[in-house]
Amino acid sequence: MELLYKGKTKDVYELDDQRVILKFKDDVTGVDGKFDPGANTVGLSIDGMGKSGLKVTRHFFEKLNHLNIPTHFLDADIEENTMTVLKASAFGKGVEVICRYRAVGSFIRRYGMYANEGDKLDSYVEFTLKDDERGDPLITKDALDMLHILNKEEYDEIERLTKEICGIIREELSQKGLELYDIKLEFGRVGEDRHIALIDEISGGNMRVYRGNEYIEPLDLEKMILSK
Amino acid sequence: MELLYKGKTKDVYELDDQRVILKFKDDVTGVDGKFDPGANTVGLSIDGMGKSGLKVTRHFFEKLNHLNIPTHFLDADIEENTMTVLKASAFGKGVEVICRYRAVGSFIRRYGMYANEGDKLDSYVEFTLKDDERGDPLITKDALDMLHILNKEEYDEIERLTKEICGIIREELSQKGLELYDIKLEFGRVGEDRHIALIDEISGGNMRVYRGNEYIEPLDLEKMILSK
Repeated sequence: MELLYKGKTKDVYELDDQRVILKFKDDVTGVDGKFDPGANTVGLSIDGMGKSGLKVTRHFFEKLNHLNIPTHFLDADIEENTMTVLKASAFGKGVEVICRYRAVGSFIRRYGMYANEGDKLDSYVEFTLKDDERGDPLITKDALDMLHILNKEEYDEIERLTKEICGIIREELSQKGLELYDIKLEFGRVGEDRHIALIDEISGGNMRVYRGNEYIEPLDLEKMILSK
Repeated sequence: MELLYKGKTKDVYELDDQRVILKFKDDVTGVDGKFDPGANTVGLSIDGMGKSGLKVTRHFFEKLNHLNIPTHFLDADIEENTMTVLKASAFGKGVEVICRYRAVGSFIRRYGMYANEGDKLDSYVEFTLKDDERGDPLITKDALDMLHILNKEEYDEIERLTKEICGIIREELSQKGLELYDIKLEFGRVGEDRHIALIDEISGGNMRVYRGNEYIEPLDLEKMILSK
Protein backbone atom coordinates (compact mmCIF):
# COMPACT_ATOMS: atom_id res chain seq x y z
CA MET A 1 0.00 0.00 0.00
CA GLU A 2 1.17 3.47 -0.73
CA LEU A 3 2.14 5.68 2.21
CA LEU A 4 0.24 8.93 1.70
CA TYR A 5 1.29 10.82 4.79
CA LYS A 6 3.55 10.31 7.81
CA GLY A 7 1.92 11.98 10.83
CA LYS A 8 3.10 12.62 14.36
CA THR A 9 1.08 9.82 15.91
CA LYS A 10 -0.34 8.02 12.83
CA ASP A 11 0.68 7.10 9.28
CA VAL A 12 -1.83 7.11 6.43
CA TYR A 13 -1.88 4.52 3.62
CA GLU A 14 -4.06 4.46 0.51
CA LEU A 15 -6.35 1.41 0.35
CA ASP A 16 -8.44 2.34 -2.70
CA ASP A 17 -10.25 5.30 -4.22
CA GLN A 18 -12.61 5.71 -1.32
CA ARG A 19 -10.68 4.40 1.67
CA VAL A 20 -7.42 4.88 3.56
CA ILE A 21 -5.81 2.95 6.39
CA LEU A 22 -4.55 4.74 9.50
CA LYS A 23 -1.67 3.02 11.29
CA PHE A 24 -1.52 4.04 14.95
CA LYS A 25 2.01 4.54 16.33
CA ASP A 26 3.34 4.55 19.88
CA ASP A 27 4.46 8.19 19.59
CA VAL A 28 2.50 10.77 21.54
CA THR A 29 2.53 14.57 21.56
CA GLY A 30 4.29 16.32 24.38
CA VAL A 31 7.11 18.59 25.42
CA ASP A 32 10.43 17.61 27.04
CA GLY A 33 9.49 13.97 27.38
CA LYS A 34 6.20 14.77 29.17
CA PHE A 35 2.87 13.84 27.61
CA ASP A 36 0.64 16.84 26.74
CA PRO A 37 -2.47 16.31 24.58
CA GLY A 38 -2.36 20.00 23.63
CA ALA A 39 1.24 19.95 22.35
CA ASN A 40 2.07 19.81 18.67
CA THR A 41 5.42 18.04 18.81
CA VAL A 42 6.11 14.36 19.45
CA GLY A 43 7.32 14.34 23.03
CA LEU A 44 7.90 10.68 23.72
CA SER A 45 7.04 7.13 22.74
CA ILE A 46 4.97 4.92 25.06
CA ASP A 47 4.83 1.13 24.47
CA GLY A 48 1.31 0.07 23.60
CA MET A 49 0.07 3.63 23.10
CA GLY A 50 -0.92 3.07 19.45
CA LYS A 51 -2.95 -0.04 20.16
CA SER A 52 -4.55 1.54 23.20
CA GLY A 53 -5.53 4.68 21.29
CA LEU A 54 -6.97 2.57 18.50
CA LYS A 55 -9.11 0.53 20.93
CA VAL A 56 -10.60 3.65 22.51
CA THR A 57 -11.08 5.27 19.11
CA ARG A 58 -12.90 2.20 17.75
CA HIS A 59 -15.07 2.11 20.86
CA PHE A 60 -16.24 5.73 20.47
CA PHE A 61 -16.47 5.77 16.68
CA GLU A 62 -18.64 2.62 16.69
CA LYS A 63 -20.87 4.22 19.28
CA LEU A 64 -21.18 7.43 17.23
CA ASN A 65 -21.87 5.49 14.01
CA HIS A 66 -24.66 3.63 15.81
CA LEU A 67 -26.11 6.98 16.87
CA ASN A 68 -26.02 8.13 13.21
CA ILE A 69 -23.45 10.81 13.93
CA PRO A 70 -21.26 11.05 10.83
CA THR A 71 -17.69 9.74 11.22
CA HIS A 72 -15.09 8.44 8.77
CA PHE A 73 -14.80 5.11 10.66
CA LEU A 74 -15.33 1.81 8.83
CA ASP A 75 -13.38 -0.91 10.63
CA ALA A 76 -10.39 -1.57 12.87
CA ASP A 77 -7.74 -4.31 13.09
CA ILE A 78 -6.43 -4.22 16.65
CA GLU A 79 -3.67 -6.80 15.93
CA GLU A 80 -2.24 -4.64 13.15
CA ASN A 81 -2.84 -1.30 14.93
CA THR A 82 -4.79 -0.12 11.89
CA MET A 83 -8.15 1.47 11.23
CA THR A 84 -9.92 1.59 7.85
CA VAL A 85 -11.67 4.89 7.24
CA LEU A 86 -13.31 6.86 4.46
CA LYS A 87 -10.96 9.22 2.65
CA ALA A 88 -11.46 12.69 4.00
CA SER A 89 -10.53 16.12 2.78
CA ALA A 90 -9.47 18.63 5.40
CA PHE A 91 -10.80 22.16 5.84
CA GLY A 92 -7.98 24.37 4.59
CA LYS A 93 -4.73 22.75 5.71
CA GLY A 94 -6.41 21.35 8.82
CA VAL A 95 -8.49 22.75 11.65
CA GLU A 96 -8.84 21.45 15.20
CA VAL A 97 -11.94 21.94 17.33
CA ILE A 98 -11.60 22.06 21.09
CA CYS A 99 -14.48 21.58 23.51
CA ARG A 100 -13.79 22.74 27.05
CA TYR A 101 -15.60 21.86 30.29
CA ARG A 102 -12.83 23.12 32.59
CA ALA A 103 -10.41 26.03 32.18
CA VAL A 104 -6.98 24.43 31.76
CA GLY A 105 -4.05 24.44 29.31
CA SER A 106 -4.02 27.03 26.55
CA PHE A 107 -7.32 28.52 27.75
CA ILE A 108 -5.65 29.62 30.99
CA ARG A 109 -2.50 30.71 29.14
CA ARG A 110 -4.73 33.06 27.10
CA TYR A 111 -7.49 34.04 29.52
CA GLY A 112 -5.89 33.64 32.93
CA MET A 113 -6.87 37.25 33.70
CA TYR A 114 -10.54 36.19 33.69
CA ALA A 115 -10.53 32.53 34.74
CA ASN A 116 -8.83 30.39 37.35
CA GLU A 117 -7.27 27.00 36.63
CA GLY A 118 -10.02 24.40 36.78
CA ASP A 119 -13.02 26.76 36.54
CA LYS A 120 -16.07 25.11 35.00
CA LEU A 121 -16.84 26.08 31.40
CA ASP A 122 -20.12 25.34 29.63
CA SER A 123 -18.98 23.17 26.68
CA TYR A 124 -17.10 26.13 25.21
CA VAL A 125 -16.02 25.38 21.63
CA GLU A 126 -13.10 27.04 19.84
CA PHE A 127 -11.25 26.46 16.58
CA THR A 128 -7.48 26.42 16.03
CA LEU A 129 -5.43 26.01 12.87
CA LYS A 130 -3.13 23.01 12.50
CA ASP A 131 0.11 24.92 12.10
CA ASP A 132 3.06 23.69 14.16
CA GLU A 133 5.25 26.58 13.11
CA ARG A 134 2.79 29.17 14.45
CA GLY A 135 1.76 27.20 17.53
CA ASP A 136 -1.73 26.17 16.31
CA PRO A 137 -3.24 29.67 16.50
CA LEU A 138 -6.79 30.34 17.65
CA ILE A 139 -9.05 31.55 14.85
CA THR A 140 -12.48 33.19 14.87
CA LYS A 141 -15.57 32.28 12.87
CA ASP A 142 -15.17 35.48 10.83
CA ALA A 143 -11.52 34.73 9.98
CA LEU A 144 -12.27 31.10 9.04
CA ASP A 145 -14.91 32.41 6.66
CA MET A 146 -12.77 35.24 5.24
CA LEU A 147 -9.80 32.92 4.61
CA HIS A 148 -12.13 30.40 2.87
CA ILE A 149 -11.33 27.66 5.37
CA LEU A 150 -14.91 27.20 6.64
CA ASN A 151 -18.00 29.16 5.77
CA LYS A 152 -20.35 30.25 8.56
CA GLU A 153 -22.85 27.44 7.99
CA GLU A 154 -20.05 24.85 8.11
CA TYR A 155 -18.73 26.47 11.29
CA ASP A 156 -22.15 26.22 12.93
CA GLU A 157 -22.58 22.60 11.86
CA ILE A 158 -19.15 21.61 13.21
CA GLU A 159 -19.80 23.47 16.47
CA ARG A 160 -23.14 21.67 16.87
CA LEU A 161 -21.60 18.25 16.08
CA THR A 162 -18.72 18.96 18.49
CA LYS A 163 -21.07 19.71 21.39
CA GLU A 164 -23.16 16.63 20.60
CA ILE A 165 -20.15 14.27 20.29
CA CYS A 166 -18.32 15.63 23.30
CA GLY A 167 -21.50 15.50 25.36
CA ILE A 168 -21.80 11.77 24.58
CA ILE A 169 -18.16 11.11 25.51
CA ARG A 170 -18.43 13.20 28.66
CA GLU A 171 -21.57 11.37 29.75
CA GLU A 172 -19.97 7.96 29.27
CA LEU A 173 -16.88 9.02 31.25
CA SER A 174 -19.08 10.46 33.95
CA GLN A 175 -20.82 7.10 34.38
CA LYS A 176 -17.38 5.64 35.17
CA GLY A 177 -16.64 8.30 37.78
CA LEU A 178 -14.40 10.26 35.40
CA GLU A 179 -14.56 13.93 34.41
CA LEU A 180 -13.74 15.23 30.94
CA TYR A 181 -11.86 18.57 31.20
CA ASP A 182 -11.29 19.21 27.50
CA ILE A 183 -11.04 17.37 24.20
CA LYS A 184 -9.78 18.08 20.70
CA LEU A 185 -11.63 16.85 17.60
CA GLU A 186 -11.02 16.98 13.87
CA PHE A 187 -13.55 17.09 11.07
CA GLY A 188 -13.36 16.62 7.33
CA ARG A 189 -15.52 16.02 4.28
CA VAL A 190 -16.19 12.39 3.34
CA GLY A 191 -18.24 10.36 0.85
CA GLU A 192 -19.56 11.25 -2.57
CA ASP A 193 -21.82 13.93 -1.11
CA ARG A 194 -18.81 15.45 0.75
CA HIS A 195 -20.68 15.60 4.04
CA ILE A 196 -19.00 16.79 7.21
CA ALA A 197 -17.84 13.95 9.46
CA LEU A 198 -15.70 13.42 12.55
CA ILE A 199 -12.26 12.13 11.50
CA ASP A 200 -8.89 11.18 13.05
CA GLU A 201 -9.21 9.61 16.51
CA ILE A 202 -10.87 9.89 19.91
CA SER A 203 -8.54 8.64 22.63
CA GLY A 204 -6.64 9.64 25.73
CA GLY A 205 -4.18 11.30 23.37
CA ASN A 206 -6.56 14.15 22.62
CA MET A 207 -8.46 14.68 25.83
CA ARG A 208 -7.77 15.50 29.46
CA VAL A 209 -9.67 13.31 31.90
CA TYR A 210 -9.60 13.47 35.70
CA ARG A 211 -10.89 11.34 38.56
CA GLY A 212 -11.34 13.83 41.37
CA ASN A 213 -8.08 15.79 41.35
CA GLU A 214 -6.09 13.02 39.70
CA TYR A 215 -5.20 13.25 36.01
CA ILE A 216 -5.75 9.91 34.24
CA GLU A 217 -2.95 8.86 31.86
CA PRO A 218 -4.11 7.63 28.42
CA LEU A 219 -3.19 3.97 29.01
CA ASP A 220 -5.08 3.91 32.31
CA LEU A 221 -7.98 5.71 30.70
CA GLU A 222 -8.28 2.97 28.07
CA LYS A 223 -8.62 0.30 30.77
CA MET A 224 -11.26 2.34 32.62
CA ILE A 225 -13.28 3.03 29.48
CA LEU A 226 -13.12 -0.49 28.03
CA SER A 227 -13.62 -2.47 31.27
CA LYS A 228 -17.22 -3.63 31.47
CA MET B 1 -6.57 67.00 40.14
CA GLU B 2 -6.29 63.43 41.28
CA LEU B 3 -4.26 61.09 39.10
CA LEU B 4 -6.53 58.08 38.54
CA TYR B 5 -4.31 56.00 36.29
CA LYS B 6 -0.85 56.18 34.74
CA GLY B 7 -0.99 54.61 31.28
CA LYS B 8 1.67 53.74 28.73
CA THR B 9 0.96 56.72 26.47
CA LYS B 10 -1.58 58.73 28.55
CA ASP B 11 -2.28 59.62 32.16
CA VAL B 12 -5.83 59.97 33.46
CA TYR B 13 -6.94 62.64 35.97
CA GLU B 14 -10.32 63.02 37.65
CA LEU B 15 -12.08 66.30 36.77
CA ASP B 16 -15.46 65.70 38.41
CA ASP B 17 -18.09 62.96 38.79
CA GLN B 18 -18.78 62.72 35.09
CA ARG B 19 -15.52 63.75 33.44
CA VAL B 20 -11.84 62.88 33.35
CA ILE B 21 -8.86 64.54 31.69
CA LEU B 22 -6.47 62.55 29.52
CA LYS B 23 -2.91 63.89 29.39
CA PHE B 24 -1.13 62.75 26.22
CA LYS B 25 2.55 61.84 26.69
CA ASP B 26 5.41 61.56 24.23
CA ASP B 27 5.86 57.83 24.94
CA VAL B 28 4.83 55.43 22.21
CA THR B 29 4.45 51.67 22.10
CA GLY B 30 7.16 49.67 20.41
CA VAL B 31 9.85 47.04 20.80
CA ASP B 32 13.62 47.61 21.01
CA GLY B 33 13.37 51.34 20.36
CA LYS B 34 11.30 50.84 17.19
CA PHE B 35 7.73 52.17 16.99
CA ASP B 36 5.06 49.46 16.60
CA PRO B 37 1.39 50.38 17.01
CA GLY B 38 0.62 46.73 17.78
CA ALA B 39 3.13 46.42 20.63
CA ASN B 40 2.10 46.58 24.26
CA THR B 41 5.26 47.96 25.80
CA VAL B 42 6.57 51.53 25.68
CA GLY B 43 9.35 51.33 23.14
CA LEU B 44 10.57 54.90 22.91
CA SER B 45 9.71 58.54 23.44
CA ILE B 46 9.29 60.89 20.47
CA ASP B 47 9.29 64.68 21.02
CA GLY B 48 5.90 66.14 20.11
CA MET B 49 4.22 62.75 19.87
CA GLY B 50 1.68 63.52 22.60
CA LYS B 51 0.56 66.81 21.08
CA SER B 52 0.48 65.32 17.61
CA GLY B 53 -1.63 62.36 18.73
CA LEU B 54 -3.99 64.71 20.54
CA LYS B 55 -4.48 66.88 17.44
CA VAL B 56 -5.34 63.89 15.26
CA THR B 57 -7.57 62.44 17.96
CA ARG B 58 -9.47 65.73 18.35
CA HIS B 59 -9.86 65.94 14.57
CA PHE B 60 -11.44 62.49 14.26
CA PHE B 61 -13.48 62.59 17.48
CA GLU B 62 -15.03 65.95 16.50
CA LYS B 63 -15.88 64.51 13.11
CA LEU B 64 -17.47 61.42 14.68
CA ASN B 65 -19.41 63.51 17.21
CA HIS B 66 -20.80 65.62 14.34
CA LEU B 67 -21.89 62.40 12.64
CA ASN B 68 -23.69 61.36 15.84
CA ILE B 69 -21.41 58.40 16.38
CA PRO B 70 -21.02 58.01 20.14
CA THR B 71 -17.59 58.92 21.56
CA HIS B 72 -16.38 60.01 24.99
CA PHE B 73 -14.83 63.22 23.56
CA LEU B 74 -15.85 66.61 25.01
CA ASP B 75 -12.99 69.05 24.42
CA ALA B 76 -9.23 69.33 23.90
CA ASP B 77 -6.54 71.75 25.09
CA ILE B 78 -3.70 71.43 22.60
CA GLU B 79 -1.39 73.71 24.62
CA GLU B 80 -1.71 71.50 27.69
CA ASN B 81 -1.72 68.20 25.77
CA THR B 82 -5.01 67.32 27.45
CA MET B 83 -8.42 66.11 26.38
CA THR B 84 -11.60 66.27 28.46
CA VAL B 85 -13.76 63.21 28.08
CA LEU B 86 -16.72 61.50 29.67
CA LYS B 87 -15.81 58.97 32.32
CA ALA B 88 -15.96 55.54 30.78
CA SER B 89 -16.12 52.06 32.21
CA ALA B 90 -14.19 49.38 30.37
CA PHE B 91 -15.51 46.00 29.26
CA GLY B 92 -13.91 43.53 31.65
CA LYS B 93 -10.38 44.77 32.29
CA GLY B 94 -10.16 46.25 28.79
CA VAL B 95 -10.77 45.01 25.27
CA GLU B 96 -9.21 46.24 22.01
CA VAL B 97 -10.93 46.01 18.66
CA ILE B 98 -8.84 45.75 15.51
CA CYS B 99 -10.13 46.47 12.01
CA ARG B 100 -7.94 45.14 9.22
CA TYR B 101 -7.86 46.13 5.54
CA ARG B 102 -4.47 44.52 4.82
CA ALA B 103 -2.87 41.39 6.28
CA VAL B 104 0.09 42.63 8.34
CA GLY B 105 1.44 42.37 11.89
CA SER B 106 -0.14 39.88 14.28
CA PHE B 107 -2.57 38.71 11.58
CA ILE B 108 0.33 37.36 9.53
CA ARG B 109 2.05 35.99 12.63
CA ARG B 110 -1.11 33.95 13.30
CA TYR B 111 -2.44 33.19 9.80
CA GLY B 112 0.64 33.32 7.60
CA MET B 113 -0.23 29.81 6.36
CA TYR B 114 -3.31 31.27 4.63
CA ALA B 115 -2.41 34.87 3.80
CA ASN B 116 0.55 36.75 2.39
CA GLU B 117 1.91 39.98 3.87
CA GLY B 118 -0.14 42.83 2.48
CA ASP B 119 -3.10 40.81 1.18
CA LYS B 120 -6.32 42.83 1.10
CA LEU B 121 -8.85 42.04 3.85
CA ASP B 122 -12.47 43.17 3.83
CA SER B 123 -12.68 45.28 7.02
CA TYR B 124 -12.06 42.19 9.13
CA VAL B 125 -12.77 42.90 12.83
CA GLU B 126 -11.27 41.00 15.75
CA PHE B 127 -11.17 41.48 19.51
CA THR B 128 -8.17 41.13 21.81
CA LEU B 129 -7.85 41.40 25.58
CA LYS B 130 -5.72 44.15 27.09
CA ASP B 131 -3.29 41.91 28.95
CA ASP B 132 0.40 42.78 28.60
CA GLU B 133 1.50 39.70 30.52
CA ARG B 134 -0.27 37.35 28.09
CA GLY B 135 0.53 39.34 24.93
CA ASP B 136 -2.99 40.77 24.35
CA PRO B 137 -4.58 37.44 23.38
CA LEU B 138 -7.18 37.12 20.63
CA ILE B 139 -10.64 36.24 21.96
CA THR B 140 -13.77 34.96 20.24
CA LYS B 141 -17.32 36.26 20.53
CA ASP B 142 -18.30 33.08 22.42
CA ALA B 143 -15.45 33.46 24.93
CA LEU B 144 -16.18 37.17 25.50
CA ASP B 145 -19.76 36.21 26.27
CA MET B 146 -18.88 33.21 28.45
CA LEU B 147 -16.37 35.22 30.52
CA HIS B 148 -18.97 38.02 31.00
CA ILE B 149 -16.77 40.59 29.26
CA LEU B 150 -19.23 41.39 26.43
CA ASN B 151 -22.54 39.78 25.65
CA LYS B 152 -23.35 38.88 22.04
CA GLU B 153 -25.51 41.95 21.40
CA GLU B 154 -22.74 44.22 22.73
CA TYR B 155 -20.22 42.40 20.54
CA ASP B 156 -22.39 42.96 17.46
CA GLU B 157 -22.89 46.63 18.29
CA ILE B 158 -19.15 47.21 18.78
CA GLU B 159 -18.34 45.34 15.57
CA ARG B 160 -20.86 47.49 13.67
CA LEU B 161 -19.54 50.73 15.18
CA THR B 162 -15.96 49.66 14.43
CA LYS B 163 -16.70 49.08 10.75
CA GLU B 164 -18.55 52.39 10.52
CA ILE B 165 -15.85 54.43 12.31
CA CYS B 166 -12.93 52.80 10.51
CA GLY B 167 -14.70 53.22 7.17
CA ILE B 168 -14.93 56.98 7.82
CA ILE B 169 -11.26 57.22 8.78
CA ARG B 170 -10.20 55.07 5.85
CA GLU B 171 -12.21 57.19 3.41
CA GLU B 172 -10.68 60.44 4.70
CA LEU B 173 -7.16 58.99 4.43
CA SER B 174 -7.93 57.72 0.94
CA GLN B 175 -8.87 61.24 -0.17
CA LYS B 176 -5.34 62.29 0.83
CA GLY B 177 -3.73 59.49 -1.15
CA LEU B 178 -3.14 57.38 1.96
CA GLU B 179 -4.14 53.80 2.65
CA LEU B 180 -5.24 52.49 6.04
CA TYR B 181 -3.83 48.98 6.62
CA ASP B 182 -5.17 48.38 10.13
CA ILE B 183 -6.35 50.28 13.18
CA LYS B 184 -7.04 49.53 16.83
CA LEU B 185 -10.00 51.03 18.69
CA GLU B 186 -11.29 50.94 22.25
CA PHE B 187 -14.85 51.17 23.47
CA GLY B 188 -16.44 51.73 26.85
CA ARG B 189 -19.71 52.63 28.50
CA VAL B 190 -20.34 56.34 29.11
CA GLY B 191 -23.10 58.65 30.35
CA GLU B 192 -26.00 58.01 32.69
CA ASP B 193 -27.56 55.54 30.26
CA ARG B 194 -24.22 53.66 30.05
CA HIS B 195 -24.29 53.61 26.26
CA ILE B 196 -21.41 52.16 24.24
CA ALA B 197 -19.00 54.80 22.90
CA LEU B 198 -15.61 55.03 21.26
CA ILE B 199 -12.98 55.96 23.86
CA ASP B 200 -9.20 56.50 24.17
CA GLU B 201 -7.65 57.99 21.02
CA ILE B 202 -7.48 57.82 17.22
CA SER B 203 -4.01 58.72 16.00
CA GLY B 204 -0.97 57.44 14.19
CA GLY B 205 -0.14 55.60 17.40
CA ASN B 206 -2.88 53.04 16.83
CA MET B 207 -3.05 52.65 13.07
CA ARG B 208 -0.79 51.62 10.21
CA VAL B 209 -1.03 53.96 7.21
CA TYR B 210 0.86 53.67 3.90
CA ARG B 211 1.33 55.84 0.83
CA GLY B 212 2.05 53.33 -1.89
CA ASN B 213 4.65 51.03 -0.35
CA GLU B 214 5.88 53.64 2.12
CA TYR B 215 4.86 53.42 5.77
CA ILE B 216 3.87 56.84 7.16
CA GLU B 217 5.27 57.66 10.61
CA PRO B 218 2.73 59.10 13.11
CA LEU B 219 4.21 62.63 13.12
CA ASP B 220 4.16 62.79 9.32
CA LEU B 221 0.66 61.35 9.29
CA GLU B 222 -0.55 64.18 11.53
CA LYS B 223 0.71 66.79 9.04
CA MET B 224 -0.91 65.00 6.11
CA ILE B 225 -4.25 64.61 7.88
CA LEU B 226 -4.43 68.13 9.30
CA SER B 227 -3.14 70.06 6.29
CA LYS B 228 -6.05 71.56 4.41
